[in-house]
Amino acid sequence: MTTNTFSEIPASMRAIRLTDPQDKTSLELQEVPTPTLREGEVLVRVQAAGVNRGDLLQAAGHYPPPPGASEIMGLECAGVIVDAGSTNQQPGTPVGCLLAGGGYAEYVAVPEGQLLSFPSGWSPAEVASIVEVACTVVSNMQLAGLKSGDTLLVHGGAGGIGSFAIQYAKALGATVAVTAGSAEKLEFCRQLGADILINYREEDFAELLKNKCNVILDIMGAKYLDQNVRALAMDGHLVIIGMQGGVKGELNIGRLLSKRGSVSATALRARDLADKARIVADTERLVWPLLVDGRIKHQLHTTLPLAEAARAHELLANGDVTGKIVLSVA
Amino acid sequence: MTTNTFSEIPASMRAIRLTDPQDKTSLELQEVPTPTLREGEVLVRVQAAGVNRGDLLQAAGHYPPPPGASEIMGLECAGVIVDAGSTNQQPGTPVGCLLAGGGYAEYVAVPEGQLLSFPSGWSPAEVASIVEVACTVVSNMQLAGLKSGDTLLVHGGAGGIGSFAIQYAKALGATVAVTAGSAEKLEFCRQLGADILINYREEDFAELLKNKCNVILDIMGAKYLDQNVRALAMDGHLVIIGMQGGVKGELNIGRLLSKRGSVSATALRARDLADKARIVADTERLVWPLLVDGRIKHQLHTTLPLAEAARAHELLANGDVTGKIVLSVA
Repeated sequence: MTTNTFSEIPASMRAIRLTDPQDKTSLELQEVPTPTLREGEVLVRVQAAGVNRGDLLQAAGHYPPPPGASEIMGLECAGVIVDAGSTNQQPGTPVGCLLAGGGYAEYVAVPEGQLLSFPSGWSPAEVASIVEVACTVVSNMQLAGLKSGDTLLVHGGAGGIGSFAIQYAKALGATVAVTAGSAEKLEFCRQLGADILINYREEDFAELLKNKCNVILDIMGAKYLDQNVRALAMDGHLVIIGMQGGVKGELNIGRLLSKRGSVSATALRARDLADKARIVADTERLVWPLLVDGRIKHQLHTTLPLAEAARAHELLANGDVTGKIVLSVA
Repeated sequence: MTTNTFSEIPASMRAIRLTDPQDKTSLELQEVPTPTLREGEVLVRVQAAGVNRGDLLQAAGHYPPPPGASEIMGLECAGVIVDAGSTNQQPGTPVGCLLAGGGYAEYVAVPEGQLLSFPSGWSPAEVASIVEVACTVVSNMQLAGLKSGDTLLVHGGAGGIGSFAIQYAKALGATVAVTAGSAEKLEFCRQLGADILINYREEDFAELLKNKCNVILDIMGAKYLDQNVRALAMDGHLVIIGMQGGVKGELNIGRLLSKRGSVSATALRARDLADKARIVADTERLVWPLLVDGRIKHQLHTTLPLAEAARAHELLANGDVTGKIVLSVA
């Protein structure tokens, strides 16, 4: 135990592992070695870990961790620093963490640049529900240049990303259009501030929003590509962060050119440390004041014990979720 | 004749008109009314007008002028201000002009924000050869964020856009790769400074440049879309400014996402006046010093009289052109 260490750290810990690589539901708590720290990392005792679609993809074998990252799932968490390693952080400090992996565990090693403070009055589960969506939305809205007066279209407005994006864009002064698959989900979006509500089962968003969207935040990929380009306004920017509707789609370059449009596809996980540190710092600067003053509220759908990760994945996969699912770690 | 007027301006002038809308070669000099000035425009007596692929498309019926623009072809020219209209410009001043149309004529009305000075030592034909390519390349390299140390891939390196882009990117400190269809054209590109020369008839540029290109400036559209995405580096940006290889292409969003890549498609002509004024000002600031000190040289393939516009179009369409074709106006 060094002077940087807050409490006795056990050599092993419990973490969720995929016990059968062929079975995405085989998520079980197992005893594994506690992570060792690399230069610039701190050890965090996890109190709550957010569940993201990336974790579902990883369990299904479609989203391996980037080189050097933990094999354990979990892309965000909240907890307490217990070993500051080589950094000047203080053991005992509560932190939110953006992770390349490792959150579904009792301890996780976190690069110092990926630590966020606790917004005043927020619980660990609430913090764990907001780190990944906030960093994702902030970095993509910066890329697309969303500004006051713009119209943003968010697909899947009732999900974790969507529910955050609605609130963030409204705080920026944008008009927000959303798609969702039920009247209940659309009502949830409306309560978060969404201005234009579209049930994708009943209406064609591309027709309703033709040439109107300055920015589109998309999770569908190929399935919506052509419709999204139709919905773009002049100088509009489509940012694709998920491919739930397929990987390869037809791009009408002529239509895109007539609008001077842009299509970007991004992911946070594989970014390098400097990039992530910049995004985390921007997110804390731009978003955390909005969390403290209540302009953005957490959207915590439910909290389950870490041991029930399989059930959490099933819930998220089934799609009847508004906001986020978080795993609590005893 | 007002005090702002340099010389007697005739009520009519000669200009190239398409006499048969079904025949793109029916380009003839005809007598038409001299343009009248709108607020903020000056009248320029044209000395030389650049020929661009957009003019070929317009003659073929595929690229109508934007609302409010002249029906006459010609997207750039050099000449002398003969009527300053409501502006503070000085009649008698030699200028280069970025145009939404109207250059294939003895006189053209030009928004003040689209005037450029004459670089010291440059002739009207030389200036007319560089305005459109310089504004196009500068605005697209700004969009894509090309910087020193980056690798830029330019398709059609021996053409007007290509020959300028090579020199501009080298001046910025980038490594430049080009494609062209013959050893002669590639040698021309090499002499302009290109570092990597690829004959697209013999080699697969996507294989040679896989994951290496920070920026790609493309004129082929659909035909090269998939290969271009393969060639992009991490955080790379593909900018499409022409669709000589078709309008609709398959976009591999998964591959784009794995690189956090962007695809933009742009055109200069339909931009609003404020946008064009900004681009013209940036181009004069960033490029004109390089024209004066010789780091960028004009690439004037040949000059033909205005009356031979049809022949100029035929030459450009046949593809045996390195650099630009300019029409001289007596």
